[in-house]
Amino acid sequence: MSRYEQQRSFLKSNFSEFKNIKTDKMKGIPQPPSVKSFNSSSKIIDLPKVREDIVKKQNIYECIKERRSTRFYKDESMSLEELSYLLWATQGITDTNKAGLTLRTVPCSGATHSFETYLFIMQVEGIQKGVYRYLPVEHKLLFMFELDGIDQKIDEITLEQPFVPNFAKKAAVLFVWSTIPYRSEWKFDITAHKKILIDIGHVCQNLYLASESVGSGTCAIGIYDQRMIDELLELDGDEEFAIYLAAVGKKLE
Amino acid sequence: MSRYEQQRSFLKSNFSEFKNIKTDKMKGIPQPPSVKSFNSSSKIIDLPKVREDIVKKQNIYECIKERRSTRFYKDESMSLEELSYLLWATQGITDTNKAGLTLRTVPCSGATHSFETYLFIMQVEGIQKGVYRYLPVEHKLLFMFELDGIDQKIDEITLEQPFVPNFAKKAAVLFVWSTIPYRSEWKFDITAHKKILIDIGHVCQNLYLASESVGSGTCAIGIYDQRMIDELLELDGDEEFAIYLAAVGKKLE
Repeated sequence: MSRYEQQRSFLKSNFSEFKNIKTDKMKGIPQPPSVKSFNSSSKIIDLPKVREDIVKKQNIYECIKERRSTRFYKDESMSLEELSYLLWATQGITDTNKAGLTLRTVPCSGATHSFETYLFIMQVEGIQKGVYRYLPVEHKLLFMFELDGIDQKIDEITLEQPFVPNFAKKAAVLFVWSTIPYRSEWKFDITAHKKILIDIGHVCQNLYLASESVGSGTCAIGIYDQRMIDELLELDGDEEFAIYLAAVGKKLE
Repeated sequence: MSRYEQQRSFLKSNFSEFKNIKTDKMKGIPQPPSVKSFNSSSKIIDLPKVREDIVKKQNIYECIKERRSTRFYKDESMSLEELSYLLWATQGITDTNKAGLTLRTVPCSGATHSFETYLFIMQVEGIQKGVYRYLPVEHKLLFMFELDGIDQKIDEITLEQPFVPNFAKKAAVLFVWSTIPYRSEWKFDITAHKKILIDIGHVCQNLYLASESVGSGTCAIGIYDQRMIDELLELDGDEEFAIYLAAVGKKLE
């Protein structure tokens, strides 16, 4: 099979093959944890409870109509309330099902939610610049580390591409989603990987629309330096690795 | 590389490899058409202009919060105004950029929009049951053909899976998105395929939220019989093939 054929075939449904596979779930192997653990002595930041009144442009029709990929931002901080809302809109837990799995603000095949959300925070009120992880169960932020020259680092990860402008300059925050593929493979085996990509698209569209509703703009970034970002976030690049990025900042008037 | 490794590696950014590739765009090969052509003698159905007042649950915060994958529907028709709104929200053209590419209600890498939207219509007011294609430039529907036993056919395509309930019974419409991958490969070569899957997730999340805003529910379907659906829609399975499905119907009270 040529490279193109192989890649195109990845886009297709491999259900007929899947029918004959015994998944780890079927084998009785315990389900992996649905979120990454953290050290309770870490620095944890409370996020304000998400309230409906954070939304400025309430009408969903207007949000869908006026959303645009936004690459240039106003040099202005985002409030912690806004960030809290964006995190909730992308990975927030809204319920738990009978099997004890989390139901979130985004759909996910089999409720396996294989994603973790990392944030490069540049300009959020009351929050020190640095790298954070979202804790969806607690709806809190875990401080990971400070990063010298954070803007430049993001440039290196994303911007040495002629077709991508300088996101980091005035963006308030860069979302970096990773996947822990086994969470989905456990249940879906070889059909997991296509689902994971589609599902992160679901997540990012909520970021686009939620941003639009609070006067911010988003630009998704699909091409990035895989090795550099994984190393920076201390992901092993196999059991967990970055899959999609999005910059968010306040919209120019 | 093992099957798992190969599939996991597909999820990653292959930008470092892409940097050294001369794309068809760079080679000066003309851009392929951005929409599929159609015979002007076909049966074409006008779609009502999308108006803000179609939206019942206007607040985007509520739509995000209350959205759930919906597998059981009220046995009730969708109005043509609602269907028009859902098509607009998923693939509607809202502008054209300097290069003449369409900008839509959903973001898409390089504005290459490699998707076509097919509809299996079961219960839409004033519309004959059958299979249709959305014409985004015209915002109209192209009637393709009637389909005997349409509900059963959808069952065959999607439902011989123990974990999927009977979607077709009361759903008003089944969305089937195909991709014409070359539209994206022309510009992104080997990085196209990951983007295509993420981008269809963006599309389907708008369907979820727009449905929620008009009292309907959506359930995305990632596993289906590839050969059967492609044959049914007369797609060649190589230059164009189905990649994602979603059922939509009126919500139970």
